[in-house]
Amino acid sequence: MSIQQKLQALNITLPAVATPAAAYVMYVQTGSTVYLSGHIAKKDGAVWVGQLGKDMTTEQGKQAARGVAIDLIATLQVACGGDLSKVKRIVKLVGLINSTASFTEQHLVTNGASELIAEVFGEAGKHARAAFGVAQLPLGSCVEIEMVVELA
Amino acid sequence: MSIQQKLQALNITLPAVATPAAAYVMYVQTGSTVYLSGHIAKKDGAVWVGQLGKDMTTEQGKQAARGVAIDLIATLQVACGGDLSKVKRIVKLVGLINSTASFTEQHLVTNGASELIAEVFGEAGKHARAAFGVAQLPLGSCVEIEMVVELA
Amino acid sequence: MSIQQKLQALNITLPAVATPAAAYVMYVQTGSTVYLSGHIAKKDGAVWVGQLGKDMTTEQGKQAARGVAIDLIATLQVACGGDLSKVKRIVKLVGLINSTASFTEQHLVTNGASELIAEVFGEAGKHARAAFGVAQLPLGSCVEIEMVVELA
Repeated sequence: MSIQQKLQALNITLPAVATPAAAYVMYVQTGSTVYLSGHIAKKDGAVWVGQLGKDMTTEQGKQAARGVAIDLIATLQVACGGDLSKVKRIVKLVGLINSTASFTEQHLVTNGASELIAEVFGEAGKHARAAFGVAQLPLGSCVEIEMVVELA
Repeated sequence: MSIQQKLQALNITLPAVATPAAAYVMYVQTGSTVYLSGHIAKKDGAVWVGQLGKDMTTEQGKQAARGVAIDLIATLQVACGGDLSKVKRIVKLVGLINSTASFTEQHLVTNGASELIAEVFGEAGKHARAAFGVAQLPLGSCVEIEMVVELA
Repeated sequence: MSIQQKLQALNITLPAVATPAAAYVMYVQTGSTVYLSGHIAKKDGAVWVGQLGKDMTTEQGKQAARGVAIDLIATLQVACGGDLSKVKRIVKLVGLINSTASFTEQHLVTNGASELIAEVFGEAGKHARAAFGVAQLPLGSCVEIEMVVELA
């Protein structure tokens, strides 16, 4: 099954790529490595504001992370010139979770992204990862994720 | 206009490169990729202590980030053997902003660095980016920025 | 002295490699670059829970960071197919320190890892670095460290 077919099977339509909220670009390729900018969580087209441990559950955070992963795949598709089969390996993902000082399930929240990437990319989707709690995020977003990808 | 001329036009004199505050080096090159260590903000030669949302405005944070970018360019110049025209691409920048739990303008603070880099490097300065709020930084610095750069 | 001999001289036995706490892998190699996932601190086989500035001293944090470095070297050994002499350069280390809003010695805590790496790898161990305070970490760990390494 191709990556497009997997996305369809998961009933995922890739969104239009976000415009950076500031003076940067959404990805840069150097050699065969693509660095994707930190993408923040969205809900119904607006920033998904919230903090884990305060006004969001781990399950809600996981859904937010899954949504960010879909946005990252949309940006990656642009970086691939439209052809996601050029992805050789999802190398690394960093999950920045907007957390109170007592919330300790950043890994479970970030799984929302990791599990989707595994579903979509299979073996090529097995990535290194770091996940941690940040004090706050741009525009109050609950989750921000950045990614490093190797293209064929 | 060369990068040196742009720096002059912006009235920027690159400082002497900082000595690491600890057991590491200011940059490492692997292949054509240079990883620059996190550089913390300075003011009048001392660490610029402060926290966004508590005792610093977004505009002050932006100035601090601009200053860190100048220090990063100074380190990059050393990594280039003195010749900044060897910079092929500013690949990625990570802005770590010392933030209270309610400050949500990390992207605007980090723009202080991104905008300077765009001015100095032009097309080669268009970078991927992540910006987020950290609980605290070494020596109480208000901003820390790390960078990945591709050399020609 | 080989790296194995240095580890023996330091009386360090590399542990079995940790199983990821979530949906990812402990490292990914792309070209000659290895990205190691964030490793969290352990004590007596369990997660080392704590926060700097609250219930841990800088010296304890430094010991935790040293322990994480040992775990990272164990993972790196697997990435090298068992032969750590394949390490060309420890490129970069990121120290994520579980910190209150007032703790400002993240660089000293992270030195626990940097100094061990310098001892074990010598010139090849001189790395770029960022260290900062995070709001919280997975499972309440006091320290998490990720690493980028170049293999020969």
